Amino acid sequence: MERIDCKALDDACPLAWTRERFDLPDDLLYFDGNSLGVLPAGAASDIAQTVTEEWGQGLIRGWLEADWFTLARRAGDALAPIIGATEGEVVLTDSTSVNIFKLCAALMKRSATRKHVLMEKDNFPTDGYILEGIIDLLGRGHELQIVPRAEIESALTKNTALALLTHVNYRTGEMFDMAELTRSCRSVGVPVVWDLCHSAGAVPLQLNDWDVDYAVGCTYKFLNGGPGSTSYAYISRSALEGFSPVITGWFSHANQFGFEEGYREADSINKMQVGTPQVLSLRGAFNGIMSYTNVSMESVRDKSLKLSSLFIELAEERLSHHGFDLASPRDAKKRGSQISFYHDEGYAICQALIARNVIPDYREPRILRFGITPLYMRYVDVWDCVDIIADIMEAGSWRAFRSSPKSAVT
Amino acid sequence: MERIDCKALDDACPLAWTRERFDLPDDLLYFDGNSLGVLPAGAASDIAQTVTEEWGQGLIRGWLEADWFTLARRAGDALAPIIGATEGEVVLTDSTSVNIFKLCAALMKRSATRKHVLMEKDNFPTDGYILEGIIDLLGRGHELQIVPRAEIESALTKNTALALLTHVNYRTGEMFDMAELTRSCRSVGVPVVWDLCHSAGAVPLQLNDWDVDYAVGCTYKFLNGGPGSTSYAYISRSALEGFSPVITGWFSHANQFGFEEGYREADSINKMQVGTPQVLSLRGAFNGIMSYTNVSMESVRDKSLKLSSLFIELAEERLSHHGFDLASPRDAKKRGSQISFYHDEGYAICQALIARNVIPDYREPRILRFGITPLYMRYVDVWDCVDIIADIMEAGSWRAFRSSPKSAVT
Repeated sequence: MERIDCKALDDACPLAWTRERFDLPDDLLYFDGNSLGVLPAGAASDIAQTVTEEWGQGLIRGWLEADWFTLARRAGDALAPIIGATEGEVVLTDSTSVNIFKLCAALMKRSATRKHVLMEKDNFPTDGYILEGIIDLLGRGHELQIVPRAEIESALTKNTALALLTHVNYRTGEMFDMAELTRSCRSVGVPVVWDLCHSAGAVPLQLNDWDVDYAVGCTYKFLNGGPGSTSYAYISRSALEGFSPVITGWFSHANQFGFEEGYREADSINKMQVGTPQVLSLRGAFNGIMSYTNVSMESVRDKSLKLSSLFIELAEERLSHHGFDLASPRDAKKRGSQISFYHDEGYAICQALIARNVIPDYREPRILRFGITPLYMRYVDVWDCVDIIADIMEAGSWRAFRSSPKSAVT
Repeated sequence: MERIDCKALDDACPLAWTRERFDLPDDLLYFDGNSLGVLPAGAASDIAQTVTEEWGQGLIRGWLEADWFTLARRAGDALAPIIGATEGEVVLTDSTSVNIFKLCAALMKRSATRKHVLMEKDNFPTDGYILEGIIDLLGRGHELQIVPRAEIESALTKNTALALLTHVNYRTGEMFDMAELTRSCRSVGVPVVWDLCHSAGAVPLQLNDWDVDYAVGCTYKFLNGGPGSTSYAYISRSALEGFSPVITGWFSHANQFGFEEGYREADSINKMQVGTPQVLSLRGAFNGIMSYTNVSMESVRDKSLKLSSLFIELAEERLSHHGFDLASPRDAKKRGSQISFYHDEGYAICQALIARNVIPDYREPRILRFGITPLYMRYVDVWDCVDIIADIMEAGSWRAFRSSPKSAVT
């Protein structure tokens, strides 16, 4: 495989056209769209309009005239088809961590006797922290059960109150079979909250078809919503009625503008909202979601796997003798939309790449992570990336970057 | 008092210069800055820079290079002097409702035997809803005690677990004596969470001097942060160590980037953060806070009272025979930064005013509310506003606006 072959793949790529939907920096190979996605071409002007027109000129009238009141729901409805949900099942609100709290606390509260709360070892830390906090807050003797990925299914028992599972692991990119695992949980009466942070916009999801009742995710990675853009929560239509919120703010009230003295929960997905939405960040999230308009997740998946397979192939050819070990699944069915390698000098190599305008990221321990983002990534980008890594390894230029500290974003 | 006298007051006003800090729509009399503040002159370009440069060009590097990581703390430190706090006591995070939950749930959790949770009748509804939710979630037999404003102090007992009090009532603009009430609470061992939504940027606050330990507020009203801009939480230095968060996301971890398996709370105000901040809305909030740079809250208060006293004086002269009854305190000491009137046709009058480019707002029941925002409001604006109300009443043109529905924003 030569660069010219990659160029030919790009020329023939049915998803090549979506690259124009983004404002990409020149001369940068960006492999961190799984941490913070890129700026959609229309986002800057849309957000500017929200600032100068809707807010600046419209002021308070923006809530009705610019329809800020329904923005969170409209954005949720736009996101729904990307994750295999339907209208009215998704709303954008708060941060992912807060949404995990809201879903898990409500589900643990209603589980009368079951005591185990199950999550995966090596999950993104906030998921476990949040569960610890809920267990402590409820004081009902729940116990956090942290088990290796491969043992999740066998750890499910009739004493399991809840499973909080991340579909695609943030470090290795390994993907669970969500349909199967949801079925297993259901068979022993265990509600599952799925964390879709590394899935939505990255891999096809069929939440409805897979009988998923609860999910959360962020919009700033593959969904390109901007730094810290508003998170989303999903509750299936069938689970909605039985779900009662625990953070009961006025945006979740059945009659929000009645200003009633007592709380009555909304009978819609609004019950997952809490307070006034952060409109500018929500507008960014909505814009990011719209970058998937008229794009099928199957075409995204097809290109994603081709890009990541190409990465593996080129890496084995040119990097394996430099100490790169594949951390991501070789089996495409188990692979999310990223390629990770173990390398003892992963941190220094990451820094050396950034100095060469190639942006992957580094995760402890020893993981060098490359996000694969088919909406704007080309085959030649993968080729150039591996080429530059090989160059850095052969020249030994990574040695100049050996140092700490190691800070990072999910 | 004639319009020309108001003009003279404006010409002599020591705070007249701050009006240039804002981009105000032409030909609009805006009396709703207590609901959504106006656009600061520099905000649009600052937010645009965050979007196109920091995010668009910097991408993931923005977390360090544009210092998004510390933005919430830097904004908190900028807000601190406005509310009489010091560096390290304030952080911007989440929505007001979520912050009320976080503070109140943590405080109710640690109260072992006390069962009453006290709040004011006619408080903004979300405060009560949130408390109901916490009581239900904890399941420890707490009881919500809702008493009229005047009876708060006498309702405090050794069985009171917590008081959640709003400093300035959102409907009448009546202001509590925060120092005195905090002292009363402390004398019976009751922690108080102060809701400052209608206070910060509106009236002088001395949280440290008044021995206040916990407070929350929004940044989109008097602080001009934009629609739904990030809320803030305050914990006094002395209360910080004893406070343990209940929503324990990774932004509140003692070693956020260590990605440790177990949760350890930060020893700073960071413990009030949860997940990734909504950066665009946070940037708006920071900008809004900066509109108070080099402005003393005493000068704001001085002008606020002069404006509201003028409003009362003109209203009594020209509106009282049209059925307007003052709902706000006549006593300046008890008045926040708004003037409210009871009127049976308040809703229709409000709509008629909006049609004349005067924007107050309406709150059930029967309350017509005018926010007083000294940073950009002129004495002639008050004169013109009352003049237009009088015109509408005399011409009877409000009758055309008699209708429902009545939706509104806090």
